[in-house]
Amino acid sequence: MTSVISLLTDYGLEDGYVAACHGVILGISPQSRIIDVCHLVPSGDVRRGAAILAQTITYLPAGVHVAMVDPGAGSHRAVVVEAGDNLLLGPDNGLLSWAIHAAGGARAAYEVSNQEFFLQPVLPTFHGRDLFAPVAAHLATGRAPADLGPEIRVERLVSFPEPTTLVHGGGVEGEVLSVDRHGNAQLSISSADLVMLGITSGDTLVLSLGRRRVSVPFRETFTAVQPGEIVAFVDSAGLIALAVHTGDASQLLGLPPGAHVRLSLVP
Amino acid sequence: MTSVISLLTDYGLEDGYVAACHGVILGISPQSRIIDVCHLVPSGDVRRGAAILAQTITYLPAGVHVAMVDPGAGSHRAVVVEAGDNLLLGPDNGLLSWAIHAAGGARAAYEVSNQEFFLQPVLPTFHGRDLFAPVAAHLATGRAPADLGPEIRVERLVSFPEPTTLVHGGGVEGEVLSVDRHGNAQLSISSADLVMLGITSGDTLVLSLGRRRVSVPFRETFTAVQPGEIVAFVDSAGLIALAVHTGDASQLLGLPPGAHVRLSLVP
Amino acid sequence: MTSVISLLTDYGLEDGYVAACHGVILGISPQSRIIDVCHLVPSGDVRRGAAILAQTITYLPAGVHVAMVDPGAGSHRAVVVEAGDNLLLGPDNGLLSWAIHAAGGARAAYEVSNQEFFLQPVLPTFHGRDLFAPVAAHLATGRAPADLGPEIRVERLVSFPEPTTLVHGGGVEGEVLSVDRHGNAQLSISSADLVMLGITSGDTLVLSLGRRRVSVPFRETFTAVQPGEIVAFVDSAGLIALAVHTGDASQLLGLPPGAHVRLSLVP
Repeated sequence: MTSVISLLTDYGLEDGYVAACHGVILGISPQSRIIDVCHLVPSGDVRRGAAILAQTITYLPAGVHVAMVDPGAGSHRAVVVEAGDNLLLGPDNGLLSWAIHAAGGARAAYEVSNQEFFLQPVLPTFHGRDLFAPVAAHLATGRAPADLGPEIRVERLVSFPEPTTLVHGGGVEGEVLSVDRHGNAQLSISSADLVMLGITSGDTLVLSLGRRRVSVPFRETFTAVQPGEIVAFVDSAGLIALAVHTGDASQLLGLPPGAHVRLSLVP
Repeated sequence: MTSVISLLTDYGLEDGYVAACHGVILGISPQSRIIDVCHLVPSGDVRRGAAILAQTITYLPAGVHVAMVDPGAGSHRAVVVEAGDNLLLGPDNGLLSWAIHAAGGARAAYEVSNQEFFLQPVLPTFHGRDLFAPVAAHLATGRAPADLGPEIRVERLVSFPEPTTLVHGGGVEGEVLSVDRHGNAQLSISSADLVMLGITSGDTLVLSLGRRRVSVPFRETFTAVQPGEIVAFVDSAGLIALAVHTGDASQLLGLPPGAHVRLSLVP
Repeated sequence: MTSVISLLTDYGLEDGYVAACHGVILGISPQSRIIDVCHLVPSGDVRRGAAILAQTITYLPAGVHVAMVDPGAGSHRAVVVEAGDNLLLGPDNGLLSWAIHAAGGARAAYEVSNQEFFLQPVLPTFHGRDLFAPVAAHLATGRAPADLGPEIRVERLVSFPEPTTLVHGGGVEGEVLSVDRHGNAQLSISSADLVMLGITSGDTLVLSLGRRRVSVPFRETFTAVQPGEIVAFVDSAGLIALAVHTGDASQLLGLPPGAHVRLSLVP
């Protein structure tokens, strides 16, 4: 039986840490297929890791999804969560919360405390290799989540509030979720929010950043504008993104992750 | 049956985009082996993507080779091309052209327009995940390219001119194809071009850059010279590369991709 | 039969070089599982490659472990070494030496000279693809190491001296082995060295850097101190690491790889 295990970490690719996790997994579950979701999550950036996992998980086959971003390096309890056909495994620090939501919500959760499944000794600075990797592999071979430790009430799992968007007064307020390597700023505002406001592709928007206002065409793709021009479009996650054709929107507009923005129709 | 699918993109590794493509592929074709050719093609650099794919494809097992570098994000039609035992899949913007040539030339080509094979909805900014990944997976499971859409005359495929080299007057003119992370400049000039001029390893060359002339030893490997010295050698693609032992030739000599150079024998 | 082949190189991820190695391997041994240990070893940094491989190999399944970091690009002979259940393959420049030690010591070694196993022509600048990849694949399919070339006495293999640590005068001297992307400095000093000195978690250490002395708490994990504070802890390799919580210890303390340090108990 082939089983899929996905991995998301902030370990980077300059060491053998990710490979050690692969090795431990394949030692226990040689038939597993491993998908590397991302290992370049900025060090300790739990929110960014949470966003990447949530935006990716719905495209992955059902399986065991392991996420390891924990600035406290083992200071949060480890949990496994059943959601849809998936098992999500990681620290209970909010990292999994958006992905659990995207996967259909938590059906059951267990603390991961049964040392029988860990590599010994477990080094507190490397739970990925010594705890999460072997546990994921055992789950992939068919061990039940309930074997890992005591059940937890799913309401007790640490959750990040979903990024806010507020539709009011003919506009929608939201925040910059993330900035990609092209400098495109992904907003928490979805295409559905714009539909509610009667905004359609081809319209021109007002982007409000504090007191500053910028006119932005809303188009199907960022190449619908001239090089150097700003554009809003629906990105691969169904969210509104701000881009500069062949440029860097985040730098040009001053839009770091977390920045508050408002979109409305030109009056 | 194991089938190989290779992927080349400019998506970078800081997000879950590549993993989403892997997930979509394995969801449709669980037995496929995926080879990541490169995901760090500079954003939108179609020529660089074309060069990397062409230099790699002859070392890959026969399979489906997917390339996704398209500054127009879906503005070019998607095509599948039969070449040798391979299927090449990507936007019709020249990205595939050098690899098609390396794989033996196009035997047939089809537009990829049959929506039945796409993830729905297809987001115009993410053809990789929603169009190319599922189509590649269906091809890997044995679907015929002709099922994807109408046949295209192969002469109509967008092609980049092969990088020029011109042997004349006792020398050979060419251009810098690419610069690698070590700063080595790979030229469009091949070892065969030098053989035609009677140049062999051990000779000393004159490198002409506009009016500037630099004396460069031609050796078997770049370590044949002292640290800090310039050297020309035959690289892994059979092309002439200029390097500085433990240094950066591209910076030292001023050799960006596209720069024109001439090599001749010291008179 | 599934067989594991691991790869460590300094090829980087910006080209198709690693993919070409994967392709060559899968063309010869389609059932092999490939684990990428690390491809971002700093260009030509043999010691760093040796350290990463040694710290990772004990977590990998038994298999063929290929390492390719050779500033001389083919200037050292290629060797295959039997150690424990593993075969290690690489240039004879010390790169394999610490991993051989970690894997239980060399039982036998052979020069890799039988051209029958190479891709032809072997380009001197790309032994990874033309020599190591096909040889590794043939070993993975069951060919005997002795078929590759003449036996070598294991004492003749090039070895790096194990990084020194010296326990004396109530303290322990060592060196910085490596610095990771978080700026944590990994020392050659192990937790066992501190145990010998009667030092336990919770103690406060004196870190001596030349004439400079810094007081450093020794804790279970780096989050046991306040953000911005220095801490010593046992890292994932069982070695002492110096970190700054949410900071960069290597920069703050001036600790590049190779720097000499001394740890002792506060008197």
